[in-house]
Amino acid sequence: MGSDTQADRPLPTVSAADIDDLLESMTLEEKVGQLVGTYVGHMGAEKTLEDAISEIVDDHVGSVSPFGIGISTRDDPKLAAETANRLQRVAIEETQHGIPIHIPIDAVHGHAYLNGTTVFPHNLGMAAVRDPELVERSGEVTGREAAATGATVNYGPTCDVARDQRWGRVFETYGESPYLCGELAAAEARGLRGSADNPTIAATAKHFPAYGQPTRGEDASVVEISESTFRRDFLPPFERVLEAGVDVVMPCYNSIDGEPAHGSKRFLTSLLRDELGFDGVVTSDWDGVEHLHQYHRTADSRRTAAWQAFSAGLDLVSVGGPSYAEEVCELVRAEELSEKRIDRSVRRVLKLKARLGLFDDPYVDAESATEAVSRESHREMSLDAARESMTLLKNDGVLPLSESLDDVLVTGPNADDLHHQFGGWSVMDDADLTGVTVREGIEAIVGEESVTYEPGSGITETEDVAAATDAAEDADAAVVVLGEDWYLHEFGPQQMNRATGEFPTRTQLGLPDAQRELLEAVQTTGTPTVLVLVSGRPLSIAWADEHVPGILMAYYPGMDGGTAVAETLFGRHNPSGRLPISVPRSVGHLPTRYNYLRHPTPIGADEHPDSYDPLYAFGHGLSYTDFEVTDLSLSSSTVGPAGTVTVEVTVENTGDRDGTKAVDLFVEDVVSSRVTPVREHVGFEKTTVEAGESATLSMSVPVERLAVHGRDYERVEPGEFVFHCEDETAEITVRTGRD
Amino acid sequence: MGSDTQADRPLPTVSAADIDDLLESMTLEEKVGQLVGTYVGHMGAEKTLEDAISEIVDDHVGSVSPFGIGISTRDDPKLAAETANRLQRVAIEETQHGIPIHIPIDAVHGHAYLNGTTVFPHNLGMAAVRDPELVERSGEVTGREAAATGATVNYGPTCDVARDQRWGRVFETYGESPYLCGELAAAEARGLRGSADNPTIAATAKHFPAYGQPTRGEDASVVEISESTFRRDFLPPFERVLEAGVDVVMPCYNSIDGEPAHGSKRFLTSLLRDELGFDGVVTSDWDGVEHLHQYHRTADSRRTAAWQAFSAGLDLVSVGGPSYAEEVCELVRAEELSEKRIDRSVRRVLKLKARLGLFDDPYVDAESATEAVSRESHREMSLDAARESMTLLKNDGVLPLSESLDDVLVTGPNADDLHHQFGGWSVMDDADLTGVTVREGIEAIVGEESVTYEPGSGITETEDVAAATDAAEDADAAVVVLGEDWYLHEFGPQQMNRATGEFPTRTQLGLPDAQRELLEAVQTTGTPTVLVLVSGRPLSIAWADEHVPGILMAYYPGMDGGTAVAETLFGRHNPSGRLPISVPRSVGHLPTRYNYLRHPTPIGADEHPDSYDPLYAFGHGLSYTDFEVTDLSLSSSTVGPAGTVTVEVTVENTGDRDGTKAVDLFVEDVVSSRVTPVREHVGFEKTTVEAGESATLSMSVPVERLAVHGRDYERVEPGEFVFHCEDETAEITVRTGRD
Repeated sequence: MGSDTQADRPLPTVSAADIDDLLESMTLEEKVGQLVGTYVGHMGAEKTLEDAISEIVDDHVGSVSPFGIGISTRDDPKLAAETANRLQRVAIEETQHGIPIHIPIDAVHGHAYLNGTTVFPHNLGMAAVRDPELVERSGEVTGREAAATGATVNYGPTCDVARDQRWGRVFETYGESPYLCGELAAAEARGLRGSADNPTIAATAKHFPAYGQPTRGEDASVVEISESTFRRDFLPPFERVLEAGVDVVMPCYNSIDGEPAHGSKRFLTSLLRDELGFDGVVTSDWDGVEHLHQYHRTADSRRTAAWQAFSAGLDLVSVGGPSYAEEVCELVRAEELSEKRIDRSVRRVLKLKARLGLFDDPYVDAESATEAVSRESHREMSLDAARESMTLLKNDGVLPLSESLDDVLVTGPNADDLHHQFGGWSVMDDADLTGVTVREGIEAIVGEESVTYEPGSGITETEDVAAATDAAEDADAAVVVLGEDWYLHEFGPQQMNRATGEFPTRTQLGLPDAQRELLEAVQTTGTPTVLVLVSGRPLSIAWADEHVPGILMAYYPGMDGGTAVAETLFGRHNPSGRLPISVPRSVGHLPTRYNYLRHPTPIGADEHPDSYDPLYAFGHGLSYTDFEVTDLSLSSSTVGPAGTVTVEVTVENTGDRDGTKAVDLFVEDVVSSRVTPVREHVGFEKTTVEAGESATLSMSVPVERLAVHGRDYERVEPGEFVFHCEDETAEITVRTGRD
Repeated sequence: MGSDTQADRPLPTVSAADIDDLLESMTLEEKVGQLVGTYVGHMGAEKTLEDAISEIVDDHVGSVSPFGIGISTRDDPKLAAETANRLQRVAIEETQHGIPIHIPIDAVHGHAYLNGTTVFPHNLGMAAVRDPELVERSGEVTGREAAATGATVNYGPTCDVARDQRWGRVFETYGESPYLCGELAAAEARGLRGSADNPTIAATAKHFPAYGQPTRGEDASVVEISESTFRRDFLPPFERVLEAGVDVVMPCYNSIDGEPAHGSKRFLTSLLRDELGFDGVVTSDWDGVEHLHQYHRTADSRRTAAWQAFSAGLDLVSVGGPSYAEEVCELVRAEELSEKRIDRSVRRVLKLKARLGLFDDPYVDAESATEAVSRESHREMSLDAARESMTLLKNDGVLPLSESLDDVLVTGPNADDLHHQFGGWSVMDDADLTGVTVREGIEAIVGEESVTYEPGSGITETEDVAAATDAAEDADAAVVVLGEDWYLHEFGPQQMNRATGEFPTRTQLGLPDAQRELLEAVQTTGTPTVLVLVSGRPLSIAWADEHVPGILMAYYPGMDGGTAVAETLFGRHNPSGRLPISVPRSVGHLPTRYNYLRHPTPIGADEHPDSYDPLYAFGHGLSYTDFEVTDLSLSSSTVGPAGTVTVEVTVENTGDRDGTKAVDLFVEDVVSSRVTPVREHVGFEKTTVEAGESATLSMSVPVERLAVHGRDYERVEPGEFVFHCEDETAEITVRTGRD
């Protein structure tokens, strides 16, 4: 029994032929067992570790999530690793073929369901950094920490494009740009998976093919889009990630064009396998198969649901365990599903176990697990990511604050709460969390004695506003930290967490009354006031935009987010984050997206309020220095449809301190066979420039990124295109293929 | 020169062979002239009657709108008729072939751009009546009045389904139910067209194929829907109207799946002609062809735009006149469009002129025009429609008010303003309008001396709230009449009307501050308060719903809306209107539609606020008596896919006064190959029942109405279906085709 960490595992030694031999020797029940998963915890029915063990032994179950997943928190990394080892030992030693199990987890922003691990900012904040390398390195850390506790598959990266700011899963996404989402999800997958020679953990592209624009912003409701929008806005991140390499694909919960993804041959086979060439494992989301029967009603029974899902192209029912195995076996016995079909799925599952080296050594070194998940270098990377994500929305000169202030009021429900600061997909209670809150971060800079802390309000409950106001009156500056609570999916689950109360809720993008009152009361004192938002979604803060001199978007900044916020407020860090999603003026302004499609204004543009009128635009983000972006130039004025354009801009730091500047590059298709967006995001780059200096940023844009997306096609059309970067524009002609 | 009214015209005497002969003798320029229209008025460029005459003579233009259209108001019906006659005389006597012209108008709710005509409630109110016969009769009146002034084509009925309450054209629609929209649009078309033997005016099904769910609620922006939703929610009203008979189809401004309807062969030829079998005239909306170039950018020039539109299947450029004729001629000369293609369109245009008898006699009796448009019987029908449309949203017992009240306060910006009461698509200023305001209606009932009128507020401007509040304190009851102004499209056009200010606007569904303040101030006096909404869209009035004891939705009730409102408030009329569209709780609750598609709630339904949680549901509407709906029964418990189910319910008037009750019938498809709505609207019926009596309502539902709509198909799937009517349900099994 090995005790090496996964990072040191030897190369896989199980070949495709070995898998075929193994398959040959397995009974139908054993095969189907490989296609179902179970869990330990309280997802619906409560299951103990002993339950899972008996499911492995008696029901041949090949996948178990004993920790690190949605609603299953553990406090002790060592115990987690021991649990993983114990399950693997049962699978190896107490089953006929000794096939190791998969241990999937939900490591969405670090291996964060396990206390003591490195908790990164959530993806929305990571996307503000505009740095795929940082995302890759954080993915690598997450993969290593997860593997160190025995996990084998991660349910990430999220490839969903957030197209409705109300949605409760916006914080898990890389924002509203399909291009940015694709680049960062691909980087995360690369990081998670480790090298081909030395694989860490399997990565899952989720949620295929379109999840991020649920109707009403309601989680898992219908994604109502045309075929061309589907191909333009939702598919590209998946194409990018599949191209970069990923092991597993997870369908989305919702239906598209009337087809629930979990039961759709069109999406899971015609599109995913035939068109996109994916040959990995397709694993259901929790209860995704059950939903076909329970909610979508495209199936009249669980059995039909199972038939529909496997016929569509699913390989693995991630949760459901023995009961779904039973359904599938019966379908095969009744000759409604062929055993050959089942074999294909089992082969994929086993192949992945082989690739990860699980057949060679599925065990981890439990003794070193705690150390492996809490390395200082990992935490530094999380802090670095949090710093880089800080997005300064407004600054009338109030920021940076002076470190020599004598009295700083820190107030608000997110000023001193790590649980809120982590956000969902993290441990479910806030006992003994490791990290630094905003209050603590500020205390570390100005000294504890110079900080007055008043809660001021809860998320929705009014608390002692008067105490906060009194303190504000005496203070030199007030930092009001507002925003959202810990939540999952449709702003729950409440019963597994403290009650989320009336906010967040999908119908409200503004701050709840209690928080607004606190902010207004503090601001009204006349003390210089800064608003910090710790929030999963962009909130509509029109009042604050008008009245509060400094506003910082902190997203869910992870374990050391408080340090990142404090360093930014006091100028130790010069902010460079750029919004990866538009902040709408109000919920009535939805949808608010930078790349809306062109359309007429029949009675004159004057009579139409702007189609894109955000409070803060996609890409917005201020610095403590001033930058000028000039000299947008292209490598050529014409290019062939298979070519690449190199786009350069000069960034000059015209201010008096060093700073980092990221730029976004957009393209406009002047005339196209189908209606195209007013601008599409096709590039970004970032540089640090000393005060008074200049730098040249270079972005490489393959012309295929300028393609028009239509019903079942994607093609580059010859003609004029205009690149935009800040206020600069440059035109290029794409030649016909024959040129 | 005839002087008969159109109603007495002889049967058309021009045959298809005559048209072929005529076509044979026409030059290219003469033909293309038949395919373009011009106007008199200020649509973009100002054009005089003399301009139009020279366009007929010199440019062969075959269609002119000299009045009765969008932004071209006339005050004198006789003068309008004389103008029409003059234009026809020019066409007949001063052109080579003497082809009569088409005179299209926008008679959306009566021939209402001409002052002195009968102004009906807008369609949204008409839909609340749930009475296709009434809609047909009002269409007939509109057709007769329009024809009496020389109009030949009406740009209606509107077949658009209103799927975003923010949209500025909601009031023109028959609401959110595809079924209701189809039934009423078909009835309107029947009425407008008169009989086959005695045609009145041509009817236009608009705006094909999908307009009513513009993104952001922004007029003409992209309709972002899947193929199956397109076929389930948007196409059915057009199918219904085409089946019932219509002369013209007008494409919508927007793009669907990246294809602007005006330039889409898929929509205008494959769908409209090949699949739906339409062989009438396809006429552009104003500037709809220009938009291809100007906004959608699928065309690089006006010429390409013309090519795109005619290639797609358009027959007539409704506005654009000579300049588009020139483009089309050049396209034919350059052999980019065939003359045969042009001939097909000209033949359709001429055929319609023939069908309407214009070749026989295009003239109208101008002397009798004024009398023809202002008949007392027409006005009575408008009043009757307004009465029937009144929809009582809330009544805590405050209504009906007693006629013996000594002092009734009437206040609010819509209490005494006919211009607001008419709504858009009516004369553009409020001088000399004929009709009765709410104030006047109430004065007629309780006597002028018992009414105190205070404006209280403008639409957005605060006026003398204190005066209204003081008056409320002294009053026995207060009637607060709030809502929206006159507007078109995206809440404009402002420059052609008084400024609409900040409301209505698409981002706001709540009342503007000035109106809310007035309502709250009046209600707070403790005087029994009733809110009347004169409004094109359903407004989110959560505060009023909670605090105001009586709320009446009056829509835009037309010329005698004030009488209808007053009669309803004082109990002379017992209201029976039912909402044809859901009233959302807030703009953040959008979309709010009764027939949303089923979807999962992954972390449990408890964690998801309702998917349909309106302030007032589709079909809501109270009465002054009580009804019980019982005994839902079906003609059979099973039915074949080509069969018909007869559904009956008993309506018992359990209250103490006579009343009228409409019911809506819904069906739920229990299991389906694609996801179906939680319920679909498939029937409605209405009856008047004396107090203490019962009646049986019978609705006939062809099983094809239960079809599942998919990508390019519509099919009835065998299995269970559940009918719902109020709280009653009944199940039916659809057998397979072989049964």
